[in-house]
Amino acid sequence: MSKVAILGFGVVGSGVAEVLQRNGAHIDEKVHSKVELKYILDVRDFPDSPFAAYVVHDFAVIEKDPEVDIVVETIGGAKVAREFTERALSAGKSVVTSNKELVAEHGYELMKLAQEKGVSYLYEASVGGGIPIIRPLKQCLAANEITEICGILNGTTNYILTRMIRSGLPFAQALKEAQTNGYAEADPTADIEGHDACRKICILASLAFGRHIYPKEVPTEGITGVSLADVAYADSCGRKIKLLGRAIRKEDGKVRAFVAPHLVSGSAPLAGVEDVFNAITVRGNAIGDVMFYGRGAGKLPTASAVVADVMEAARNRDRPKFMDWGPGGSGVALPPLDVESPWYVRAEAAPEAIRGALGDVTFLARAGAPAGEVAVLTVSMTRGELEERLKDISLHTVFRVLED
Amino acid sequence: MSKVAILGFGVVGSGVAEVLQRNGAHIDEKVHSKVELKYILDVRDFPDSPFAAYVVHDFAVIEKDPEVDIVVETIGGAKVAREFTERALSAGKSVVTSNKELVAEHGYELMKLAQEKGVSYLYEASVGGGIPIIRPLKQCLAANEITEICGILNGTTNYILTRMIRSGLPFAQALKEAQTNGYAEADPTADIEGHDACRKICILASLAFGRHIYPKEVPTEGITGVSLADVAYADSCGRKIKLLGRAIRKEDGKVRAFVAPHLVSGSAPLAGVEDVFNAITVRGNAIGDVMFYGRGAGKLPTASAVVADVMEAARNRDRPKFMDWGPGGSGVALPPLDVESPWYVRAEAAPEAIRGALGDVTFLARAGAPAGEVAVLTVSMTRGELEERLKDISLHTVFRVLED
Repeated sequence: MSKVAILGFGVVGSGVAEVLQRNGAHIDEKVHSKVELKYILDVRDFPDSPFAAYVVHDFAVIEKDPEVDIVVETIGGAKVAREFTERALSAGKSVVTSNKELVAEHGYELMKLAQEKGVSYLYEASVGGGIPIIRPLKQCLAANEITEICGILNGTTNYILTRMIRSGLPFAQALKEAQTNGYAEADPTADIEGHDACRKICILASLAFGRHIYPKEVPTEGITGVSLADVAYADSCGRKIKLLGRAIRKEDGKVRAFVAPHLVSGSAPLAGVEDVFNAITVRGNAIGDVMFYGRGAGKLPTASAVVADVMEAARNRDRPKFMDWGPGGSGVALPPLDVESPWYVRAEAAPEAIRGALGDVTFLARAGAPAGEVAVLTVSMTRGELEERLKDISLHTVFRVLED
Repeated sequence: MSKVAILGFGVVGSGVAEVLQRNGAHIDEKVHSKVELKYILDVRDFPDSPFAAYVVHDFAVIEKDPEVDIVVETIGGAKVAREFTERALSAGKSVVTSNKELVAEHGYELMKLAQEKGVSYLYEASVGGGIPIIRPLKQCLAANEITEICGILNGTTNYILTRMIRSGLPFAQALKEAQTNGYAEADPTADIEGHDACRKICILASLAFGRHIYPKEVPTEGITGVSLADVAYADSCGRKIKLLGRAIRKEDGKVRAFVAPHLVSGSAPLAGVEDVFNAITVRGNAIGDVMFYGRGAGKLPTASAVVADVMEAARNRDRPKFMDWGPGGSGVALPPLDVESPWYVRAEAAPEAIRGALGDVTFLARAGAPAGEVAVLTVSMTRGELEERLKDISLHTVFRVLED
């Protein structure tokens, strides 16, 4: 018998309660033991909810109840959530979370605390919503040296880019539509500036490469600089603009992680990932490329990932599973200064000036381009080399091109 | 310390030896214990191989060596492989396999034997080559009631279809090219007649739905009936022909599993799966659709999946993991008689006769169609209803259309 407390009765938290109830018999059968909701912690009451009777307002009730052995943290953020997670782990309870910010910022310490207390700290739902990625990355790819992770990690920005590409909506209008449809929050900063994708690539990279990589170590560019002009130029060469989170381990063992818009070939699997879907490509030295695809967010998909972790924790009460990594530190992650790629450049310049600066380029065309605008694809080089060559050119946009 | 014996030094078996060696330090670190190759069983000697010293010819050597606790079975087939698997499990050794035929035909008994002996029988590599699918299906989707599995499960046929679609090669020529490139065997029957895909959908369906579903219960149609005319008609309506293995659980709890060519919408994720790649879509009641994509075959991808299972077995020696299902039996699987879908029909008939028989249809066109040929997409109906309506029509091809 496992008793569960859910912290935070928002979208994901209420989804967890629903999935636990809806699939209850199925869950008990798979765990070979009963898994029961006991508390829901929230500052609010929910008198009209079928879960009203579970609501408590004081975390100490949960902390001090020895019957509760699994705590689901769906509060979000890295303050209260961190305090309650530490207290729950310290009280010998396993914690399951969908909180990417907390895992990206404090995952190492929390996993260490869980190990010391002999309990689990599980976070499958923190990346890719319902897509199974954390456990496959750790277990099924165990036999591979992973060399690169590359993914569309944020559904909101992918929805906005899809609307720009398919319907020609300008960024601001696509964002507004995303907000209307509930795909973007009133304050969309964390999504559109790439912070959310950054946290997720940090979690994936930390797990894949074994050392904590912090968001502050990951150069992050969002999609606010993507214009319909760029979309049109990308289309003219059979490519789509996608916001990618990438982490590359080079021979020196250090990881280059970054988040930025990329031009992706239309025939690449990632190019077909549209709307709010997410996809994560993992490259291993034996396995080649594998991709995991699905809804990256949403109440029930995310809740089902949380519940799968709850079941894992329930099944392994006397032998917790560690999905952990080592400490971060200087030299674990490097800025992607030496990551070469072709580049897409849109500038205010004469074609001869661009060719003079960049050498061998492919010129792109779009209908309605203003006089003086030029757009090209370059050969492969580092960002530093590109900037050096373009230092006298008036630039609009510079995006990486993802190589096949 | 775990000692490993590999049965069969063919493509996959030699790949396993290579991955164990190449990633040895990494594997030991992840398992927190040494994992060492001790024997390779084969009828042949391999004097020029770096693994020559490991080769033995008598299974009894392995069976009787108490140091060997993990046996990798990459022999294939359901005869010798079955005997050695039973003997290894009976001797208290865990068995890891890439043998889809053996798992599809005898998985239930072998898993039961493993449970009785307190060891593991693991088969991640039997489906999807290196794509992690067995463990995610069992563990990460645990919180979902799975309703459907649909996949491109055979790389050979997907390669042939891709060459027909993209380069206009006729079937026979595309098959020959696949053989030249090592993607199809000299006797390609198991691939092109759908038997290989059938075994894989049996394994996935048995695991997802909890009861053994046998290949003989799964109506199976290969790709030998796919012509360039069908490819052209499919293209005319924005679709691609793909060989799909499907398993659908309806409200009555019974599973309809089948393998057949389908017309798939060009915008569906499965349509973008080309060449020898495989992809498996899983639909759950909470998670929605998730897809797993990667190389479905090949020496190192498959070997890496085997080695991941070896590591799992090594880590859980005193507490084996059961990736099991219950017994099969009458009524577990039903033929897909009541599975409705739209249909693609190519026939020798007058358009009025087709419309008279089928009612509301969409006529398709292709360049160079001979007089008297007609092709349509129907509304949704069962195969029985379709056949009843078409009983007086001279048919060329009938394929299902996959609904979005």
